[in-house]
Amino acid sequence: MNVAEVARRARAASRLLATVPHELRVAALEAAADAIVAGKTEILNANQRDCEQALQALAAGQMKPALFERLRITEQSIKQMAAGVREVAALPDPLGRSLAVTELDEGLTLYKESCPIGVVGIIFEARPEIVPQIAALALKSGNSVILKGGTEAIQSNQVLFSIWREALRQFAEIPLEVINLLYTRDDVSEMLSLADDIDLIIPRGSQEFVKHVAEHSRIPVLGHGEGICHVYVDLAADLLKALSIAFDSKVQYPAACNAMETLLVHKEVAAEFLPDLIARYQVAGVEVRGCPLTLALKDVAGLVAASEEDWATEYSDLIVSIRIVTGVDEAIAHIDQFGSGHTDAIVTEDQATAAHFLERVDAAGVYVNASTRFADGFRYGFGAELGISTSKLHARGPVGLDGLTTYKYKLIGEGQTVASYVDGERSFKHRRVR
Amino acid sequence: MNVAEVARRARAASRLLATVPHELRVAALEAAADAIVAGKTEILNANQRDCEQALQALAAGQMKPALFERLRITEQSIKQMAAGVREVAALPDPLGRSLAVTELDEGLTLYKESCPIGVVGIIFEARPEIVPQIAALALKSGNSVILKGGTEAIQSNQVLFSIWREALRQFAEIPLEVINLLYTRDDVSEMLSLADDIDLIIPRGSQEFVKHVAEHSRIPVLGHGEGICHVYVDLAADLLKALSIAFDSKVQYPAACNAMETLLVHKEVAAEFLPDLIARYQVAGVEVRGCPLTLALKDVAGLVAASEEDWATEYSDLIVSIRIVTGVDEAIAHIDQFGSGHTDAIVTEDQATAAHFLERVDAAGVYVNASTRFADGFRYGFGAELGISTSKLHARGPVGLDGLTTYKYKLIGEGQTVASYVDGERSFKHRRVR
Repeated sequence: MNVAEVARRARAASRLLATVPHELRVAALEAAADAIVAGKTEILNANQRDCEQALQALAAGQMKPALFERLRITEQSIKQMAAGVREVAALPDPLGRSLAVTELDEGLTLYKESCPIGVVGIIFEARPEIVPQIAALALKSGNSVILKGGTEAIQSNQVLFSIWREALRQFAEIPLEVINLLYTRDDVSEMLSLADDIDLIIPRGSQEFVKHVAEHSRIPVLGHGEGICHVYVDLAADLLKALSIAFDSKVQYPAACNAMETLLVHKEVAAEFLPDLIARYQVAGVEVRGCPLTLALKDVAGLVAASEEDWATEYSDLIVSIRIVTGVDEAIAHIDQFGSGHTDAIVTEDQATAAHFLERVDAAGVYVNASTRFADGFRYGFGAELGISTSKLHARGPVGLDGLTTYKYKLIGEGQTVASYVDGERSFKHRRVR
Repeated sequence: MNVAEVARRARAASRLLATVPHELRVAALEAAADAIVAGKTEILNANQRDCEQALQALAAGQMKPALFERLRITEQSIKQMAAGVREVAALPDPLGRSLAVTELDEGLTLYKESCPIGVVGIIFEARPEIVPQIAALALKSGNSVILKGGTEAIQSNQVLFSIWREALRQFAEIPLEVINLLYTRDDVSEMLSLADDIDLIIPRGSQEFVKHVAEHSRIPVLGHGEGICHVYVDLAADLLKALSIAFDSKVQYPAACNAMETLLVHKEVAAEFLPDLIARYQVAGVEVRGCPLTLALKDVAGLVAASEEDWATEYSDLIVSIRIVTGVDEAIAHIDQFGSGHTDAIVTEDQATAAHFLERVDAAGVYVNASTRFADGFRYGFGAELGISTSKLHARGPVGLDGLTTYKYKLIGEGQTVASYVDGERSFKHRRVR
């Protein structure tokens, strides 16, 4: 079956799935979780075959070690997959939520209600656990999903996909074509062109990969761009909090997009605050690049001079750039110029300064006295995460089930025509009911 | 000043505007409305000059009469412009609305709050009243706006723009660069490339124009595609209501995107219902194109046979295609195949059939017993309309002020780090406060 035909069937299936009641969607998710647990041996065997292939590719230098790491499935990760599906099952129904009700006139009421987007395409590399994770989110929110995995995980993905479809077979009301799996690189470019039958594309992978997809897609793409996150340590900062936050934001997991890249420090606290922090960074193996004022500090050593390019760089590594500023407004100006609108934090005990920073910084996440690393769907309590969006449209920041829903307007009347309002025979009330 | 520089300044201005309190934004809107009334003579004179130019172009066959119609400003339309600005001023503040509050843990609370998108570009033809209308929506919602008008309205647009900027001059907190006006066709292609400094493009004009903009933009576009709207007259329809709705949906203003193009009728009521309706259509000058069953009805004459292409055509004119179907599911299948996801209506007294249609039809507006012509921001009570979106992302259906807002997450902590949650020292509560 070609990709266009897969997408057409996924579209048809999505229309039926949109009307499946929540209890049934939950039952199907529970069945899928059970099937994953029951299919343990099958999954491990398939993954073993993928890993053997990958080891050869690794030995031949055709695969990066990081990709290989993300390929492996363990008994523990199978338990986590099933648990993840059950967590999604337990979330409230994202569909049919009443977003607004307006009485336009007597007997003419407008309801704004959440509903599925339709068909969602996911393109991912390695990480076979993406299959149950995304399938669960899609089923919960009434969307069909077209998964395109990497060839390195083909056996694992295929088994997980078959297990999922088998579980769905118990539910006559749910068409099997709500979940679909593609393999080849050619399928990607065809997917990206099917704007009539795919509503949203979610690329999961490296930043270059996301960028490539965004540039080649005729369909809207949900995916994060750069994560150049900042922490600003204010004059009124509690320096113990600042130490923990600046350390955690950089060191806890530097490869994440929500890790801090640049630390901004008020000039009046720099001499007291920075030498301790820099020593801690250096013990943790962090390379520190500083502005001239940072380099000139007493009691610091081993620093590199930061270039203009450093301020605009997402290191995704144990490197931090530090700039000393004259105050919150210079910090904000720096973030305006170099930030990527992902997550920026201030450390301060001054409420007015905190409020100013919160209003003024234009980012998906603006934090007071907390690590930038909290920018994550699981930590935000979404139960699951589709990704993190640095776009301002549709979804911004960590995206959970909400990112897979849109809304429709339902208007219930008694035969009303527009002519009678235009003629002045009747007039609108526009009474907001909720 | 080149377009990139205009956009950069608009971006900087938008950051300041985002923090301007609602009272001040309202005061500025009231001042702008006053200034429009006070500038009446100036506006009329400028418009007179545009119209004289346009008359020459019209005489030379270089301008369409419809475009000329939309160019003219009267004393009445100046009053309407000012009234429209005051209506927007009176709407509730779209910014800083609390969308969700979650206590992630003791002393660590996540707030999801509405905020401006940033910089919005509007590209429009003729219709100078777009200037105050969009400027009002943008100012109300804390966004900078870059207006690109047509050369045919250059004098009118320039005067309205100057009046608006003069009004803003009274408010030191609001930068003048929140509103900007461009003229030339070259400016459009440059605008569409400035993805760093323009967040959203809204084209207002013909469908071809919207399509052209969407195809050439690197920035997300809010604009409606086709409006192929349907009315389905069910077996259980009140045929008097059906007559009004089918007539109003087609005839009240056939050029609108929310006008019905295809009428679907249950076979059991067709013989009773259609001859009357068709006669009424024909009196109103509507050309009726029918399926074979429609053509074979008794008591109808002067019909044209509908081709397969008719079902997929947005006439935007006094033409209707009629198809007789076996029931609601065939009607839905027709809408699935040919509809554009704009607005589709059912006429029925059967609650179960109505509910099925409401859930099953995938459109921005799904109506029961009401004319499709209600699909409009003013009729929905939004106070103003940016446009109608047939996209499912960001905004769907008629779009009001909400379409100019996004949200940010504010996280307020007491020095928390992610490491302490990963280490198991602390665990998340995820208590939804609202």
